[in-house]
Amino acid sequence: MDLLKKRIQSDGLVLNDSLLKVDSFLNQQIDPVLMMKMGEEFARRFQGEPITKILTIEASGIAVSVMAGLVLKVPVVFARKKKSVTITEDIYYTKVYSFTKQESNDIIVSKQFVQEDDKVLIIDDFLANGEAAAGLANIVHQANATVIGIGIVIEKSFQPGARKLTQAGYRVESLARIGSFSNGQVNFL
Amino acid sequence: MDLLKKRIQSDGLVLNDSLLKVDSFLNQQIDPVLMMKMGEEFARRFQGEPITKILTIEASGIAVSVMAGLVLKVPVVFARKKKSVTITEDIYYTKVYSFTKQESNDIIVSKQFVQEDDKVLIIDDFLANGEAAAGLANIVHQANATVIGIGIVIEKSFQPGARKLTQAGYRVESLARIGSFSNGQVNFL
Repeated sequence: MDLLKKRIQSDGLVLNDSLLKVDSFLNQQIDPVLMMKMGEEFARRFQGEPITKILTIEASGIAVSVMAGLVLKVPVVFARKKKSVTITEDIYYTKVYSFTKQESNDIIVSKQFVQEDDKVLIIDDFLANGEAAAGLANIVHQANATVIGIGIVIEKSFQPGARKLTQAGYRVESLARIGSFSNGQVNFL
Repeated sequence: MDLLKKRIQSDGLVLNDSLLKVDSFLNQQIDPVLMMKMGEEFARRFQGEPITKILTIEASGIAVSVMAGLVLKVPVVFARKKKSVTITEDIYYTKVYSFTKQESNDIIVSKQFVQEDDKVLIIDDFLANGEAAAGLANIVHQANATVIGIGIVIEKSFQPGARKLTQAGYRVESLARIGSFSNGQVNFL
């Protein structure tokens, strides 16, 4: 998606050879117009699929997901991150490790919001090692629901997440695919 | 806002005489169409104001804020909650106490995203004791920026937040104002 790639090139900050900061339009400040364009693009890519629900994770996945949900006319559910969780009958949970933050979080979703007949589009802001997306897919499977696909805003294709998810049989659609960072520049695939 | 009040009456769950659960359309599952209508309503109420930015707080404030931002054509900034924060030169932070959760969080915003010339509309999902909204206003003041007003989805008018904020000189616009809960029912003002 050219609009997003241009925005990454103009406003993204390459911190080192694996980290990109996009705080100015995605991760702390949000550009609602860009979110809407990205929501429309996810809807276009998954057109014709019988999606009943979008599942994302707080906080940075919410804005783009709610735009995609508006276009696709389906509700959005966001998983919450907790340091630790008291396991009860009424929640699905799974552990997700963040390589960036070097910490584990439990992610939880109330069981009532993912049902067996749901066809779920998973959306997240970044795909690196694939831990968050795999965790969300795990929750969908716990509910005996179906994963239609995984929509990602920024894929760091030089990290193993996209390959792992594709090999596991998921359709992954990323709006920007980064092959490498070099000299502070972003090189798209 | 009638659409919201009806939704609260049909889908809200009164937990006790001060707690309302609206997980099915606002706090974990999000209805994007309702979010858009509420975003439009905030834009209508603050029409003519020179708003340059919306400030909200993760996670439940993001969806409605990004819709209001889309209509008003301004960026949305969300404050992050942290259990504790390492104070650095480049962030604004303030402490916010949640009576519901009986815990304090630090909320933080990067200084670059609230500038002195910003005219800020604060948006949040609930207003009870006013701690979160006052914390966001505090951050705007730290930046020497201006608070245009405070937009709230659900105001629990029987708690002191709305009165405190109004007495402090802020314009508070709440889409639904709850006078009391009785016998599991919601009584609007």
